[in-house]
Amino acid sequence: MSTNTTPHNHSITRQMRNELNGHASKVIWFTGLSGSGKSTLADALERHLHKEGFRTYILDGDNVRSGLNSDLDFSEAGRIENIRRIGEVAHLMVDAGLVVLSAFISPFAKDRQRVKEIVGPDHFIEVFVDCPLEICEQRDVKGLYAKARAGEIKNFTGIDSPFEPPNTPDVYVNTHEQTLQECLTQLILNVKCKM
Amino acid sequence: MSTNTTPHNHSITRQMRNELNGHASKVIWFTGLSGSGKSTLADALERHLHKEGFRTYILDGDNVRSGLNSDLDFSEAGRIENIRRIGEVAHLMVDAGLVVLSAFISPFAKDRQRVKEIVGPDHFIEVFVDCPLEICEQRDVKGLYAKARAGEIKNFTGIDSPFEPPNTPDVYVNTHEQTLQECLTQLILNVKCKM
Repeated sequence: MSTNTTPHNHSITRQMRNELNGHASKVIWFTGLSGSGKSTLADALERHLHKEGFRTYILDGDNVRSGLNSDLDFSEAGRIENIRRIGEVAHLMVDAGLVVLSAFISPFAKDRQRVKEIVGPDHFIEVFVDCPLEICEQRDVKGLYAKARAGEIKNFTGIDSPFEPPNTPDVYVNTHEQTLQECLTQLILNVKCKM
Repeated sequence: MSTNTTPHNHSITRQMRNELNGHASKVIWFTGLSGSGKSTLADALERHLHKEGFRTYILDGDNVRSGLNSDLDFSEAGRIENIRRIGEVAHLMVDAGLVVLSAFISPFAKDRQRVKEIVGPDHFIEVFVDCPLEICEQRDVKGLYAKARAGEIKNFTGIDSPFEPPNTPDVYVNTHEQTLQECLTQLILNVKCKM
């Protein structure tokens, strides 16, 4: 970081945007194994929030890996930088007044902690989407577990790379034991309490 | 880019967010020399748009260089990557329904063209904030020209790195010949026509 940048004071602040929107801005950070249901839950929650007039946005592999982070690989370094940049974008979006729903495996506790610090702890809601590995592997929606088992994908979380579950997530759902609707209801209640 | 990502169809689209907000989403891209008045104009335009109920956000060195792009230096490669990432973030924010005002020197025509392609030409409004180099250097708000002349900053646009002016900007203002209010009025009229 250079000293070639000087802070301007922007006239329009997050607070003013929150007032215009009629709601606070937050990052709802879904973490869990591939196939645990992060994207499905994020999508369902976004539909609910949008209908209620919340300004929302989903960050996930679809819109981040294809653009901003298209230069990164799936090595450990690439995945750490991937999560860092997502945290920074989420931070900008919170500043812009949005409720950001992010759906990334984000397996490492220290990376999630870093995002929490970037975004600000008050704006960060961690959602642990739990589901046993064997169930995720049975689902294998994207066929990635099969590829990982065949050695075609390296550093795949749950196979040859660890997942560090959050110790104290703000919201815990288990997509194996609960229905989508049960998880969603629980999410909505918890998220609303923190808004 | 790997094939480890599969497109989901997000239920909530840019169009739905635009309807909720009551306005289209755009990138208003200010380009010009350091000291030409990009940030001042972006701030004035944002104040105007916010008052009218537009959901806006300013991307500039203050919030981008300190976070997302804190790993980049001011070499040519670093500056190209800086603009690329800003283009990608602007693209996500347009998808999120925002009017993004970006204030970066962005001296190279091909970088601006790339951003236009990333964002989509229909969503991109290029504003050339023109001002003679000698005037910018006299203003030297941040003291950067003095440092560049002294050789303390390398690759400084206008001194030892070129500025390629847009041939056909969507909006042209000249902050040396026009007052701030004149520039702003012209901006508002032009931007509104494209919303």
